[in-house]
Order: sequence, then structure tokens, then C-alpha cells
Amino acid sequence: MLRIAVCQLPLNIENIDENIRLANSAIRGAATQGARLVVLPELTNSGCVFKNIAELEERATTLDGQILQEWIFIAKEMNLTLVAGLAIKDSGHFYNTSIIIDSSGLRGWYKKVHLWGDESDYFTAGDEPPLIVETDIGRIATMVCYDIEFPEWVRLTMLADAQILALPLNWPDSDRPSDQTPLAAVLIQAAAAQNKLIVAAADRTRTERGIIWAGSSVITDSDGVIRIIADQEDQSEAQVLVVDLEVPLNRKMGPRNDARTDRRPDLYKEILQH
Amino acid sequence: MLRIAVCQLPLNIENIDENIRLANSAIRGAATQGARLVVLPELTNSGCVFKNIAELEERATTLDGQILQEWIFIAKEMNLTLVAGLAIKDSGHFYNTSIIIDSSGLRGWYKKVHLWGDESDYFTAGDEPPLIVETDIGRIATMVCYDIEFPEWVRLTMLADAQILALPLNWPDSDRPSDQTPLAAVLIQAAAAQNKLIVAAADRTRTERGIIWAGSSVITDSDGVIRIIADQEDQSEAQVLVVDLEVPLNRKMGPRNDARTDRRPDLYKEILQH
Repeated sequence: MLRIAVCQLPLNIENIDENIRLANSAIRGAATQGARLVVLPELTNSGCVFKNIAELEERATTLDGQILQEWIFIAKEMNLTLVAGLAIKDSGHFYNTSIIIDSSGLRGWYKKVHLWGDESDYFTAGDEPPLIVETDIGRIATMVCYDIEFPEWVRLTMLADAQILALPLNWPDSDRPSDQTPLAAVLIQAAAAQNKLIVAAADRTRTERGIIWAGSSVITDSDGVIRIIADQEDQSEAQVLVVDLEVPLNRKMGPRNDARTDRRPDLYKEILQH
Repeated sequence: MLRIAVCQLPLNIENIDENIRLANSAIRGAATQGARLVVLPELTNSGCVFKNIAELEERATTLDGQILQEWIFIAKEMNLTLVAGLAIKDSGHFYNTSIIIDSSGLRGWYKKVHLWGDESDYFTAGDEPPLIVETDIGRIATMVCYDIEFPEWVRLTMLADAQILALPLNWPDSDRPSDQTPLAAVLIQAAAAQNKLIVAAADRTRTERGIIWAGSSVITDSDGVIRIIADQEDQSEAQVLVVDLEVPLNRKMGPRNDARTDRRPDLYKEILQH
């Protein structure tokens, strides 16, 4: 049984230090509750709604920056795997990334491939597949936020034998009926059920320069059942959501069905068209 | 504005005539309410849990059979488009199909590609893409039930410019929390939101030889919002669900995003692997 935590944080674009304090406190809180996998939101260090590139420059970190050093230290100390969204500058480009750290250090970093809204004014899109890392708690995949709207992208993680998808989010709120499951959670449920993997998604809160965030942090099991979801009413404070789940070992849909072997890829060729 | 109806029917595997009466009555009821698109469940003529092939032989119809003749007559009389699941025998094979009929007659038939449970003991799997038909109410795609678990399959309908996915279901009930949206509806919401098309799904009810059906008939708009869903409490009677929706004319996700052009198919090649 694996204890998983997603940390929904009220990020503050005006105060990077506050964001890192919030993040470190949430990670330590989750670890104290016994979590072995901890997921943080997209762009935890920076926030999202930049006025200009200078603001991003100020907020972005680097692969050898202090934030990663701190998190590598905490991951080792607490013996946990951490997946977090970060604005990273590398070789003169900014990337909207998700990094995977475990007790052995930085295991990999993923650059968001499908960019949302104004992001393409600031970030260079990635062109590598979803990151998948074999850890001592299972094969963990990651991508970022809008990537989840592309079911092809999640499928690639199943085809690469992922067991858990850890998903940093900054999901904008939209005008949807409040008695229905938030859209991000619906997409996550479908991704989990269709690919038979756990999905652990950490969203953010705090209105940012006019953008209201959905606060849809959620953990689903590999049948797509919501096992825990952020309190949709009170989103002023950080929320650390914790559940215990069996890491899935196969793709069985039923006694005679399997999400992987029931595929008919010979019939899917047109999916590569633009 | 298009008025759409999905008809959730308590099919009776012991009584084919009753099924056809139920179907015809539901179609006429929907038409009387002004529906221009009417969707019926999977295997409307036969039910699903066969004891042996002889039972299927008895229940299956043919492309020139009486059921299709009747429905072509009704579609013409009522000026509507009908999408329905049928067990069809053709050239010595049985197929689990979805047929599209409009006032001009039978427009096409689709053979279920991804077979569930024991179906492969009875039916030959199709090997053609989802059926898409240009009608006077829009470009309508169809597939059948378990096909929806394969997001590649839905994607193909978007890539072929479908605006509405009409989906016959026989969705088995499973042991999921009753306060969550039924799984079929979740998958349908995701399919709609990710592909920016309307999905109109007709499920069935009435326990059949030990199988309880989910009764998850639902219509979502092209943002994946549930616009109507079958009463989950009382499923003893037929339910005809009717809503008015604008047929979507583009794939816009937001001012700068588009479900089709934001795809990165050059990065999806591995999706064709088994």
C-alpha cells in the first residue's frame, strides 16, 4: 500500500519566498503523515500570470538552483518521492516543467509539451515524451496540466508501463455547474480508468491577477474512482490530501478485458494526422 | 439549436417483440417532443447475455430486415435521424452494430471494434473506423459502448470532423461510489471536452440473467458538461431524455487554444505500438 499526498497551495506570484515556504511546509506535513509520494502544483516557484518576461526571469530557477537543492535534501531526509511543477531556465530558454526527485536526487525533468493560453509567449514547448521514472514506490509518469487534455499523451505513459501519473496543475476555473465534478477531475478520472493507473494531481488556489483557479486537486485509483478531492468550498488555505492506494500491477478491465491488449493500434494510424 | 433525445430502455432478452415495441414507442415519443436526433441503446433488438449462439441467431436481424424497414419509415415520417444499436447478421457473421438512419434511409452501419466480455464468443469484431455521416443536422459519428474506453477511437471522429457522437451503450453496473458520476458518463464527459463534440449516449436497464446495467444514459455538450443524465434511482421504466444544444462549429478550447491544432501528432508515434 502506498501513501500518496497532493498539496494544493495558495501560490503568490508577488512573493516567491512565500511559495517556497508553503511548498516546503506542505512537503514536510505530508511526510509526517507518512506519505511516500508527494505532488505539488504547476509553476510552484513562480505563479503563472506574468506581466512580462522580466518577471519570469526573476522567478524562474535553474537545475542547480537552491529550490532543487532544498527539495533533494528533504526527499533524502524524509525518504520520499517528490513531483513538482517549476519554472526552470536552461540554456537561455524558459520551460514549464515537472521534476521528479527521490532520495537519490533529481531523477528527471519534463518540459510541458502542450502550452495553454499565453504560455507560448513565455515558455519554450517541450518536444520529449512524458517523463517516466522507475522509483522504489513504482513507475511514476509526469506531465503538466493542459497536457491531460490530450489522451494520446496519457496513453504514452501506459505504453511505457507507468503505474502512477503525478500531475501538477494550474487549472483555471470556468463557468461550469457547481454540482458537477470539476472538469480537471473528470479528465483525470477518464485518464486513470482508460489506462489503469493511479493519477495524483495537485492544483493551486489564490486569485492571480484576475484569474481564479479551480482548486481541483484530486487522487483517483486505477479504476478512475475519486478517492479524495480538494474541498471545493473553502480554498483559502493550503490543503494536503492523503490517501493509501495499491499500486496497480496490470491493466485488467474485467475477466476477459485489458486496457492494453484490447487496443487495436493497426486501426489508429489516422491519429497521427494533424 | 438541435433537439436531441436519448432513449434508455428496459430491454428484455426473452422478448424481442417487446424490445421493438419499446424502441418504436420511445422514438415516436421523442419525435413528438420535437427531437431531430434520437439515440437508442446497444443491441436494442436482442439484449446481450446470450446462452448460446442459437439465441443470437434467433434475435439478430439483417440489413434488409423488418426492424430497419420500420425505422426507415418512422425516420422519414418524423423527419429525424436515428442512431441505434442492433445485432445484425451479414454474410454468415454476427456483428454488434450501430446504424444511422435519416429521412433518406439507411446511411451506414458500424461494427463494434473493441469487444467486451463474452462478446467475442458471439460477434465478429469490426475493422473499420468509427462511422461518420453528414446529415442535415450535422456530422454524426457513432461507435458502440466499450469503444469509448479507447480515446484513440474518439479522436478519430474529431479528426474526421464529427460534431456529434451518438453512442449506444449496454454498460454493466460496477461497485462504484453512488455519490460519484457513473463511469460511462465520466468517459463521455472527457470524450466531449477533449474533442469538442456533443456526446449523446443511450444506455439500457432491466437486470439480464444476473447482469445489472448502469443506466447511464447521458447527453453532454461540447465542453463536457452533463446537460441531462438518466434518473439513477428509478430505472424500472423507459426514460427519454431530451435537450436542446448548439451544434459545435469549431474546436476552440479558449482564446488561444484549439483541441485540434494544439495536438502534437509528430510526438504521438509510439501510440501505434501494441
